[in-house]
Amino acid sequence: MNESAVKPVKTDEKRVALLGFGTVGSAVAHLLHDQKFEGVRLTHIYNRGIARKQGSDRASGLSGDIVWTENIEDVLNSDANVVIEVVGGLHPTGEWLTRALASGKHVVTANKQLIAYHGAELSQLARQNGVSLVYNAAVAGGVPVIPAVLHGLQGDRVRQIAGILNGTCNFILSQMEAGADYHDVLAKAQAAGYAEADPTADVDGFDARAKLCILARTAMQVGLNPDAVPVQTIRNVRLVDFHYARDLNCTIRQVARVESDGDTIRANVGPTLVPHTSPFAWSHGTQNLVMTTGEFGGDVVFSGHGAGGNPTAVAVVSDLLAVAHGSASPLLPVQDRAVSREFVAPHYLRFVVQDKPGIISAISGALAQVGANIDSIVQRPGYPKDALPFVVTTEPCSTTTVQQAVHTIGQMPTMLEEPLLLQMMREPEGD
Amino acid sequence: MNESAVKPVKTDEKRVALLGFGTVGSAVAHLLHDQKFEGVRLTHIYNRGIARKQGSDRASGLSGDIVWTENIEDVLNSDANVVIEVVGGLHPTGEWLTRALASGKHVVTANKQLIAYHGAELSQLARQNGVSLVYNAAVAGGVPVIPAVLHGLQGDRVRQIAGILNGTCNFILSQMEAGADYHDVLAKAQAAGYAEADPTADVDGFDARAKLCILARTAMQVGLNPDAVPVQTIRNVRLVDFHYARDLNCTIRQVARVESDGDTIRANVGPTLVPHTSPFAWSHGTQNLVMTTGEFGGDVVFSGHGAGGNPTAVAVVSDLLAVAHGSASPLLPVQDRAVSREFVAPHYLRFVVQDKPGIISAISGALAQVGANIDSIVQRPGYPKDALPFVVTTEPCSTTTVQQAVHTIGQMPTMLEEPLLLQMMREPEGD
Repeated sequence: MNESAVKPVKTDEKRVALLGFGTVGSAVAHLLHDQKFEGVRLTHIYNRGIARKQGSDRASGLSGDIVWTENIEDVLNSDANVVIEVVGGLHPTGEWLTRALASGKHVVTANKQLIAYHGAELSQLARQNGVSLVYNAAVAGGVPVIPAVLHGLQGDRVRQIAGILNGTCNFILSQMEAGADYHDVLAKAQAAGYAEADPTADVDGFDARAKLCILARTAMQVGLNPDAVPVQTIRNVRLVDFHYARDLNCTIRQVARVESDGDTIRANVGPTLVPHTSPFAWSHGTQNLVMTTGEFGGDVVFSGHGAGGNPTAVAVVSDLLAVAHGSASPLLPVQDRAVSREFVAPHYLRFVVQDKPGIISAISGALAQVGANIDSIVQRPGYPKDALPFVVTTEPCSTTTVQQAVHTIGQMPTMLEEPLLLQMMREPEGD
Repeated sequence: MNESAVKPVKTDEKRVALLGFGTVGSAVAHLLHDQKFEGVRLTHIYNRGIARKQGSDRASGLSGDIVWTENIEDVLNSDANVVIEVVGGLHPTGEWLTRALASGKHVVTANKQLIAYHGAELSQLARQNGVSLVYNAAVAGGVPVIPAVLHGLQGDRVRQIAGILNGTCNFILSQMEAGADYHDVLAKAQAAGYAEADPTADVDGFDARAKLCILARTAMQVGLNPDAVPVQTIRNVRLVDFHYARDLNCTIRQVARVESDGDTIRANVGPTLVPHTSPFAWSHGTQNLVMTTGEFGGDVVFSGHGAGGNPTAVAVVSDLLAVAHGSASPLLPVQDRAVSREFVAPHYLRFVVQDKPGIISAISGALAQVGANIDSIVQRPGYPKDALPFVVTTEPCSTTTVQQAVHTIGQMPTMLEEPLLLQMMREPEGD
């Protein structure tokens, strides 16, 4: 089985170095080994502590002529002409991929943070060196939304993208919808490997934000600075919010969205009320879902497994095959744009108060002062009067305006905790 | 505005001839005109009775240096290097596109029947002439399922595809779900332009079948003869079936499906009971929906507007841009395969009988004789005893087996009409 070691290098052959041999990396290696795609050969596997990796169950069955190494120079100085990177992080991965591209190697990466922050320079570098940089696995794992958009929606003008882009949050929120407590379900997600020990990147929105910026770049040709996109944590969403959401024919999901009206780009990430009649409400567990809205083609919805070894490996290997077939995505001109946080939407406000006469009047006064109209006031029975959660929803109004009112209301002495302010997604249009 | 007439031809420029100036064709022309994509220029528009077309509202605003013609030779002998075909039909369109490819013109087509029946030869001809043949608009209109599969799921092994591929049937069945009569809603669809005067291609499954064969080719690399794929009409589905379906937590949709277990390819098209918990049940109006199931990446769902001028034009123009960018789909080896109709699934059987003692016993006897186990018997109250519709569902069993039993049962003297036999889709798996 070692004969390929003496085979002459074919001009067309892609010799592939794999950086990272964890869950995704080992799935990539096995997919390549099992499927035996023509013109593609795995030549190097890099990981820290490579001896342990090479001796693990994950390595069994892989071809014997792979070079296993923990020295990145072995890869960067090799004759591999494609580098697959599934290590993650900005450093030193960014430097490695910069060197790989500069030396004429194609790069396939699943690194969302790197592409969100440095995709523009890296794409430019790839172009200068006549190679491809592809990163479809960086967004929505096994859901091929980037290839679909790049190859199938270029003829449209995409005006809006909204997505459930973080499987951990979707798992947590859909379990809370079914009655679970936030802390219990976070612990369960951590035990199942869906959530990190430090869940910040997931629950506070940074992971979804990076993916949103990549989607904005590929589908709308706008370059956003991820740090400029506001994020709201899901940590403050309670079970009571799911109960009130249900009364409003909604549930709650972490939604990342970007909109363009031609002049202004609006973007944010955070827990959002989504109507039961919307596909966002139907997305459960660790699934991802993306809806694009085109000026000509209307809404298109993509959904599936957003993470996990095999689905992400499918995305990585499909990217590799696109490089091998010479059909990798065209490099489109991207325009850097400022981000507005000025969405106009209906809003959900949940207060917890010590119940006293005049509260509703005070709240509605504060909202009226900023020009926000109340659409509904909902108070479910059964809560104690000395810590009463109740909800006000507004008609569509600007997010920053309603934030001002909520800040004012939060100062009122009857408020027992900071009010929760969420955007509400509108009902999907019928056919 | 006529200066482009004297511009020298750029080497990279795609000069585009458009065959067909109906709803889709005029939308394509306007998309190209409005968006002014670099490197792409519309040079010819062909249609029968072109003078009327050129004088119509649809033509207003289009660039003055387009050649309008009703003589196909003007296009085939021109220096246009891309032909977009939105005429439809096998003849003479097939001959035109054959000549275009043979003379080194790229072809972009939305012609599902032509690609389903002759895609293999046409792709071969394109390859021999060093040009591209792309047909993403032939399936699911504005939903970019073919680009997604070709560029984003090549790393997987797609084992199953199920789709709502005909917007007319989806409109009719989702309106029937809401209580409308078949004939009324067909008339409404015809008035709205969703359905042809002769609805055969839609309601009897031929349109969906052609699209299914194209999906099988692109996602599973199997070539199927469309005529070998069994179709079942939706004409025999009644309101009572929606009532019974609801009792079974289902609704009814026209589903086209193809499955491979490695050895056998199974395919069919027809009205199917789909669980309320499945995305198929959520698809309403003229929407299309496709679910692919990969061995590694699992289920991926795509949905959106399957037809209409603008969504289809987005698909056509995106294909054109892929040709212009040199990123058109790779030509993959396709293996011709026989089609089995031997699905194993639960089945729904609806009978209309003159109610007499012993009927259930006779039906269950006939089913037992072929080894099909009854899962449930449902009889809603309120129907007349002399024309009583009731339903039997089976546990998973082979379709041809249960067809035998239904044939036997249909001969019984108490049967007032031919029994209706539908496949039932199983519940989606949870996360």
